[in-house]
Amino acid sequence: MARLQSRQISQLHLYQVLHAVRLASEPLSRAEIAERTGLSQPAVSTLTRRLLESGALIEVGARPSQGGGRRERELAMNPDHAWVVGVKVAVHQLTVALCDFAGGVRNTLKVPLSSPMTQTALVRTLAREIESCLAGAGGAVRQRLAGVGVALPGFVDSMRGEVLWSPVLKPATRKDTASLDQALTDAMGVPVFIENDANMLALAEQWFGHAARVANMAVVTLEHGLGLGLVLNGEIYRGHSGLASELAHLQLQRNGFTCQCGKQGCLEAYVAHYALVRQGRQAGLLAGDEPLTAEGVMAAHAELIKLARQGNARAREIFETQGSTLGQWIGNVVNLLAPQLVLLDGDGTSAADLYEPALREAMTQAMLLPHREAVQLVVRHQGDEVWARGAASLVLQRLDESTEVVESISRHGVDHESGGRRPDA
Amino acid sequence: MARLQSRQISQLHLYQVLHAVRLASEPLSRAEIAERTGLSQPAVSTLTRRLLESGALIEVGARPSQGGGRRERELAMNPDHAWVVGVKVAVHQLTVALCDFAGGVRNTLKVPLSSPMTQTALVRTLAREIESCLAGAGGAVRQRLAGVGVALPGFVDSMRGEVLWSPVLKPATRKDTASLDQALTDAMGVPVFIENDANMLALAEQWFGHAARVANMAVVTLEHGLGLGLVLNGEIYRGHSGLASELAHLQLQRNGFTCQCGKQGCLEAYVAHYALVRQGRQAGLLAGDEPLTAEGVMAAHAELIKLARQGNARAREIFETQGSTLGQWIGNVVNLLAPQLVLLDGDGTSAADLYEPALREAMTQAMLLPHREAVQLVVRHQGDEVWARGAASLVLQRLDESTEVVESISRHGVDHESGGRRPDA
Repeated sequence: MARLQSRQISQLHLYQVLHAVRLASEPLSRAEIAERTGLSQPAVSTLTRRLLESGALIEVGARPSQGGGRRERELAMNPDHAWVVGVKVAVHQLTVALCDFAGGVRNTLKVPLSSPMTQTALVRTLAREIESCLAGAGGAVRQRLAGVGVALPGFVDSMRGEVLWSPVLKPATRKDTASLDQALTDAMGVPVFIENDANMLALAEQWFGHAARVANMAVVTLEHGLGLGLVLNGEIYRGHSGLASELAHLQLQRNGFTCQCGKQGCLEAYVAHYALVRQGRQAGLLAGDEPLTAEGVMAAHAELIKLARQGNARAREIFETQGSTLGQWIGNVVNLLAPQLVLLDGDGTSAADLYEPALREAMTQAMLLPHREAVQLVVRHQGDEVWARGAASLVLQRLDESTEVVESISRHGVDHESGGRRPDA
Repeated sequence: MARLQSRQISQLHLYQVLHAVRLASEPLSRAEIAERTGLSQPAVSTLTRRLLESGALIEVGARPSQGGGRRERELAMNPDHAWVVGVKVAVHQLTVALCDFAGGVRNTLKVPLSSPMTQTALVRTLAREIESCLAGAGGAVRQRLAGVGVALPGFVDSMRGEVLWSPVLKPATRKDTASLDQALTDAMGVPVFIENDANMLALAEQWFGHAARVANMAVVTLEHGLGLGLVLNGEIYRGHSGLASELAHLQLQRNGFTCQCGKQGCLEAYVAHYALVRQGRQAGLLAGDEPLTAEGVMAAHAELIKLARQGNARAREIFETQGSTLGQWIGNVVNLLAPQLVLLDGDGTSAADLYEPALREAMTQAMLLPHREAVQLVVRHQGDEVWARGAASLVLQRLDESTEVVESISRHGVDHESGGRRPDA
């Protein structure tokens, strides 16, 4: 355990109080906050006073006490304390969500994207669309913007804010001397946090969705690529390097199909959209053999779905093989991590009718017997706004963890000079 | 977050204090305990007073303060507060470790075992050998025995104390109406905790070995079977069901080799001792085709090692394939969980000269590029006493978490009637 300085301990306690109020489904009394945090009532009184003074929390109408006695005032997040933006960058589109401090979505925006693109072009596009989303919510919002979260597919080192590889980015050029988060921080003037996209969907599920009361969950995302976000023991799991949960790049065969990451034999190279398109071309179902853009893959994937739904046996087989391969490895993730819930999401689930039976059958076959009854698989398609809300939630989490919630934002307005995660970077 | 009652909060704080002192490499001052736990100094004073009164902690000679001022008395675990026993049950031998309350090993014992055996026979053997180990340490020890931890290979639901399947046990008979932990509790008169064996090696590493400062670690064990213990975010990871980390039974092929668990295509069926013996027989290197006992597998495995070391090309190839298969899947565990350290242990590592180069090469090939520099693989063979010490540590952890440390053990001696984990079971 790291040694904590007293200032850090105080900050930890502020975070515990904020986090308890944030994840509660309704306002909490001070006694309830003490119960949920394990802090003493006097400590909670001191901490909530600081958070009320700063404007992070507000007092709301109290529930009548059970005994009919004095009503205790209850505490909730102050939605107007700060604004944050979350962005989901997919290979073919960009989705922006503007959220208030309570995590409520106030505006969204979705635009097409042509990837892979240079980092410079991505930063320019992101800045333009984020400003557009902010403008759509009214002029005062921009001044209270406290941070931006960006969810990207690929290998994202969330601890350093670095994208090591992503299908949306062309390989780094000499122009890209700054990391993506730093370049976007410079463009926007607020702290920027970069994360793997599936982790952000998992965070949204944990804060607002299925996983609110689930300690161990795997969120598998099937899109242009394959993703995995893990909630283990109640927290997003990132591992030592920030690069954990790379289900997509499990090496199934040393000399297997070439993955978009450049390695051979990755699971993704058998089950993602582009992998199915390759199989469809090899089977003569789809025309052409030239490399496809992301939009091209989306269109060809849609064509393959159409053929399968029309009853084309070879096309149906491609989706069934996708289901049984993916199901086997989801089952193996269950063998390794024993979650109670597996969510399968992403635009690929719109074709779940074609692969879900094979997926469930293979998952069951792969799982140890005791898991077969215990683990629930939920398949659905929520849309990119939820991922973007997850990216915004990451910013809220970072704000809660920092001293900004109490100091910078409230006392002096949003002070971006002192507030960033890496002020000396 | 679950709501905690004030008694639970107090217990949680006692645990935090005990845990900080337990994992410290040297005695701690009250100020250091406050720093490490995030508790206030007055709270630490109250809590340590209770723990000193109960005898769980002792005061030891103080270090001189840096400023040359008043010396503060320091706190350490009281080794004589209670005794615990840990047992590692392997298919061919039983290892017992008697530990004091500080986790120091006071006596060990190792006897051969003929498995699979009935639960009744295993309980009888365990009780006899544990009593023998206790007797070897002197008569007073038996009265202060506070619990027994048993580490077993197989599917062990640590939350319910149930062995769902283990290579050391014959399938349950009608006589086995009680669970293993309950049957052994009845035989020994103290609380008994059952756990997967690899988890217990991981716990020993975390408390006393390599992983003291490692937040994310995978311990892979290669023996008669294959095991995995995970430390994630500083804690042994058990998942929702207590059955997590089943690396051995990852399904590689739906119609692959039959595993000792009964499923087909499990990773273990390609790399464990019995899998190599099967391959050696198929290649005509080892005689016989009758089913082998655990001892028979050990002997045949030793014969195969001898052949390979003598230069037999086919035998060498079997070990190289073992290495490359195991390396690939260790690499994939790294892709999923991004630990900073992988330990490979178990008696199978005594033949590491035959497979380690292939294992390291395949692991590197399977891992994403960023992990190749960041992850350390350590291969060694520590012996079964370390696993048994881990099982004893589990009992200490359960004692720390319970109220027994403060109440039952100290004030009234070891009160087994009130102390068990499941008093109403």
